[in-house]
Formats: sequence, C-alpha cells, structure tokens
Amino acid sequence: MTALADLETPSLLIDAARMRANLARMAQHVAARGGRLRPHVKTHKSADVLKHVLAAGSVAGITVSTLAEAEHFLAAGMTDILYAVGITPRKLDQIAALQSRGGDMKIILDSVAMAEAVVARAAAMDTRFKVLIELDVDSHRGGVDPHSDTLLAIARTLHAATGTELMGVMTHAGGSYDASSDAALRRAATTERDLSVLAAERLRAAGLPCPMVSIGSTPTALHVEDLSGITEVRAGVYTFFDLVQAGIGVCTVADIALSVLATVIGHQEDKGWAIVDAGWMAMSRDHGTERQAVDQGYGVVTDLDVQPLPGVIMGSANQEHGILMMRPGDPRPMPVLPIGSLVRILPNHACATAAQHGHYHVIEAGRVTARWARLRGW
Amino acid sequence: MTALADLETPSLLIDAARMRANLARMAQHVAARGGRLRPHVKTHKSADVLKHVLAAGSVAGITVSTLAEAEHFLAAGMTDILYAVGITPRKLDQIAALQSRGGDMKIILDSVAMAEAVVARAAAMDTRFKVLIELDVDSHRGGVDPHSDTLLAIARTLHAATGTELMGVMTHAGGSYDASSDAALRRAATTERDLSVLAAERLRAAGLPCPMVSIGSTPTALHVEDLSGITEVRAGVYTFFDLVQAGIGVCTVADIALSVLATVIGHQEDKGWAIVDAGWMAMSRDHGTERQAVDQGYGVVTDLDVQPLPGVIMGSANQEHGILMMRPGDPRPMPVLPIGSLVRILPNHACATAAQHGHYHVIEAGRVTARWARLRGW
Repeated sequence: MTALADLETPSLLIDAARMRANLARMAQHVAARGGRLRPHVKTHKSADVLKHVLAAGSVAGITVSTLAEAEHFLAAGMTDILYAVGITPRKLDQIAALQSRGGDMKIILDSVAMAEAVVARAAAMDTRFKVLIELDVDSHRGGVDPHSDTLLAIARTLHAATGTELMGVMTHAGGSYDASSDAALRRAATTERDLSVLAAERLRAAGLPCPMVSIGSTPTALHVEDLSGITEVRAGVYTFFDLVQAGIGVCTVADIALSVLATVIGHQEDKGWAIVDAGWMAMSRDHGTERQAVDQGYGVVTDLDVQPLPGVIMGSANQEHGILMMRPGDPRPMPVLPIGSLVRILPNHACATAAQHGHYHVIEAGRVTARWARLRGW
Repeated sequence: MTALADLETPSLLIDAARMRANLARMAQHVAARGGRLRPHVKTHKSADVLKHVLAAGSVAGITVSTLAEAEHFLAAGMTDILYAVGITPRKLDQIAALQSRGGDMKIILDSVAMAEAVVARAAAMDTRFKVLIELDVDSHRGGVDPHSDTLLAIARTLHAATGTELMGVMTHAGGSYDASSDAALRRAATTERDLSVLAAERLRAAGLPCPMVSIGSTPTALHVEDLSGITEVRAGVYTFFDLVQAGIGVCTVADIALSVLATVIGHQEDKGWAIVDAGWMAMSRDHGTERQAVDQGYGVVTDLDVQPLPGVIMGSANQEHGILMMRPGDPRPMPVLPIGSLVRILPNHACATAAQHGHYHVIEAGRVTARWARLRGW
C-alpha cells in the first residue's frame, strides 16, 4: 500500500467506498422496480471497475460507446453488448468479428436508409445482426419519433430481411441533463419510459417483434418510478458521479468518487491564486457546470480526505496548469495552500476527466490499494 | 498507401503539406530576426512530428509540458529540454534521472520558497539543477513581476547555492490568446520581449548570470519584430494551427493541418442536423472560439480535401456523437451529407484535440502515407 503523498501528480483517483455506494444505490433502485441494468462502460472503461458493477447486481449486459470497448470487455468475459452509437456499414465487419468470438452484439440505427444498408451488408457478408431502433424522446440528438411512420418502416425493413433481427427499441434521454428540479427529472424519466413503451406497443400492434425496450441516462434512471414494459435501464456516470450530476441534483458533492490529485507549484498572492500542476489535460476541458446554478469552474478543490475547501475551485486551466481561487463572489479569503502541498479536485464530468488518463489509483481509507488500467481510443 | 475511405472513424489526420508550411513559416520568421526556436512538443507529442520540426531549422532545444514528454523525447535523441511547468521538489528525482541519462534539463520556478526547496533537495541529493525564473508579463498565470525585488531574491538564492545554476529568465505571454487585432498582438509581443530583457538586465546589473532569456507563445512569436536580447523563442500550436489561432488572426483556416475524420450516421432533417460518429471524445471539449468573433462550435466541417463546407460546424457534441449544423444565423440550407459519407472536422484547439488520440494518420495528396504514434499521460 502506498500513501497518497507518494503518488506522482497529476494522478486520477477513485474513492472506492464512494464508488461502491453509488453502484449499490443504482442497482437497488432499479431492482426495487423489477428492472435490470445494462450499465454503460464508457464512463470508466475499466474491467476492474466492471467487476464492482457486476458485484452490485441486477446487470443484464453492458453498453459500449466504441468498438474498442466492445473488444476489451468481450475479452474480459462480457458477451451481451449493446453498441449505443448509430452503426454504419463500414463497422459491420468488426461487429461480425466480435460475434464470431462469442459477442452477443446489439447495434442501433434510426433511418430506413441505414436499415437498408445494414440489410444489404448482412446479405453480402452472409451473416446476421441484432438491431434496435433508436428513439428520440426529447429532441436532443438522434433517433426517430416514437409516433412516426418511419419507426414502423425501419422495423419492417429489418424484420423482412433474413440478415437482421429486429430486437426492439432504445433511447437515451440526454435532455435530462438540462433539468434543474426533481419534478423536471421525474417528468423526463416518465416521458422516456412512456414514449419507449408506446413505440414498443406500436411495433407489436403491427405484428412486429420487440423483445427489448431499453431506456436510460443516470438522471432518468434514478428518477423513474415505474419500469413496466421496460426490459433494461442504461446508465454510466452514476459509477463515479460528478459536479454536473450534483448540479442537477442527482447526487451530492460528497458522493463523487473520482478526483485528480495535484501539487501546488506557485501562487499569485495579490490575486488570491494558487497554481497547481493539473490543468485541462488532467481535468478535461469540460466546463459543464458553467450554465448551472453554481459554476464550479474546472472543479471543486478538496483536501486529501476529499473534504471540499469551502468556496475553492479551479477557476481556470491551461494544459498543465490549474489556477485555484475562491469562487467569484465568495468574500472569504483564499486558504493558505503552501508550495508542495497536495489537493484533490472533483471533476465536472467524470467521463471526460477519466478519459484524460490511462489508469486509476484506487483509494481505500486514505491509502492507495490498487492501480487499475483503463482503455482509450477507438 | 491507404485511401481516407479505408480508415476507421473517428481518426486523427495530419495534412503533411500544411504542417511543413507552418513549420517553415515559424522557423523563417524567427531565423530572419536572428533568433532560435525552442519548439514546444506538448502540441504534437510525437517524435515523428519532431523530425519535421527539426528539418525546418533554427531549433535550439525543446520545451516539454510533462516529464513523460521529457523521457520520450530524450529517448528519441533530444537532450536540451526545458520543462515549462513550475517544478516541485517531489519531481527532482525524475529530473536527476533524466540528467543521468544525458538530459540537459532546465527547470523553472517563481518563488523564493520553491527556490529554497530546490536548493535543499539538490544538496540532499548531491546533484545540480539548471533553473530559470518564470516571469509574469501579462497577469495570466504564474511568474514573478520583472520589476520586483522577488526576482532578485530568487536569483540570489539560486546563485548562492552550489546545487543550483541560475540560467536566466523565461516567460509565456499566454494573455496574447485574448488579443483580437494585429496591433494588439504586436503590443503583446513587444511587452513580452521588453519585460524579459528588462528582467535579464536587472539580474546582470546585480552581478547575477542570465545566459538564457526565453520567451514565447505562437501569437507573440509570429508578431515579435525585434529579438535583441532574446536567446530563444518557444511556441507549439503553430505546428498544426487551429480555429482559435485563426480567430486571433495568427493563421487562416486553410493553414490548419489537424482534422478528425468522421462518418455521418444519421440525420434530424427537420432541425437541419447531420449526426457523426465523432463527439467530444474525438474533438475534446475545448470550445475556445466561443468568446471569439466567430463561434465555431466544436469545429469547422470540411470535405475530404479539407475544403470547408460553407457555414457548417459541429454545433454540439456528446461523448461519441457530433451534431453538424449550419452556424446559428447562417440562412443557407444545410448541405446534403448522405448516411455513411465522410467529413473532416477542423479543431478549436490542436493541443486538446490531438490529446484525445493515440496516433496520427498522415495525409499526403489525399492518401494516407504513414501512421505516427503520439504520447499520452504523465
């Protein structure tokens, strides 16, 4: 076991107890409503973290954001994999290769044109792909209108072909990230559920199969009250949580399990600044709290025990420099952070901050107990 | 040789001809003023790119932003290395190890406290460190006031000790990124030069050595007219340039040598959106043009020949999804980008976008001619 003070800076830390509590909370929330989880691995990209996700229970399979993740987690033993980015025909060779190695792959699309392209490619390859239709429930990204004729046209195209198996519908209520009240989150969750069930019922009423009805996002997953008609819930960022989720009200700052360790390298005393050796390369350029009620800059600064230094944020960031300061408008003086001292910085967006690093250091009771690799690239 | 259409997406591309032209422009600008370059490798982090930087000439050594870069480029044969982030005593073991392998390392600091800590550590290690004093010329980050007594106090501390060798002064006029006119850039460049020369003269007048006077940033390096008294100029992003530099007026969009290849995976036709399989993971979350005269979203969209599609930007980005749209206010219709078609996206910030990738694909005359690895981590 290593002390925190023996780590080089910047380093990416997981508070293991907080992570386990986050995983248990989501697993229990979904299980209590009779649901199952298909956790998104894009947040952590680590087979070591996934072991803890599985240990928390209620897991039906995983969700990936890249085919590199699919390769990695299939090699680690996870076979039931949903690739939650719209497929293109050029990626089907890789999907087929994953299938030949035991991957039970599910792909998604949201147009007749792409459905026809997948059908054509499947015929040319003499293979078969399991396909879900992506739904748009909140106008934030891709997907078809659950009420549309297009939904049925895509479904018929997929169902009529021998090379594609219509598996159902999926959606991601990403618009929930703009919610700012518990009531708004419950409305987003209800809308996501209702429109997904509606789409599934329309398919079945047309004589089409719909064995999977997949919904999710961390905010809606934790606010959905009724999972009738839903076969699985997808979520990722709840693994670590972050300041954006705390700003939405889905967690508290004390739940955030990810932080970056940094060393104080200088001061500008007249400005009340302390400068650390962690900038946007270590934190990411994500400034997702900028439009929330409390702008946390590039992160909330804590002591080594992850207790926030009241009012202190990383107010600006260069590549390898972070400038710590009091949050604008906070009248308190900047605390003394001597040269060489260590701080931890809680991130705006766990997925983005973790993506800047090649591994995690795992902290249990203030000691470094493990180093876990994480995947990068595509 | 591979065709662009054979690459997986997203992929990071270097337009080799543009890169060589950018490197030649900077080398000639500095050489014409009797100066030498200490190029910053933090932008590209690639020994293959560095070969082209060296071929362009006028190079005195390199600048690094992490000790991992120092390790990497020392192994590639570069010995003269300036680590341009304020040192901490905990990093001196690694500096000493680099020196023992032939690295001619220069470190920086900006306080008497850190100078004393380095002196103490050098004595304990029985080794010697070459140190520059960081100057603050535009209040944007670290550094001491060139007019201050602190400058002389640090210099005396370093000069009096046997374990530290006072090498001179260095500054980075990062405030130049906020300039918006040629005149403002020339003023920033002149201020950076004048204050650095002033600091050097104050050291010499006090009987202290100052063999190095190191200045730089891409905008000021290309706007400095007189390098008298300056021993070297540091710059990095000019290697590739980017939309932020184009917004400042330091380059044009047609000079940008870095782009991300992406595939169109869907549309929301009523909104005029095309959705691609490159989001913030491929582009970074850098939105540095947001406060410039033209907000380029997460990037400017071009065809495969790097010709911009007029008015089309990546207006928003999720982890692996980018939403292409007309720039807000542009009345033209969104061009047709069929499903499966390829586009290239020019980045806001080359350092940040490159950091999201593990390698470059090098494009010469529209063909992929090489794959170059790049370094990540610390």
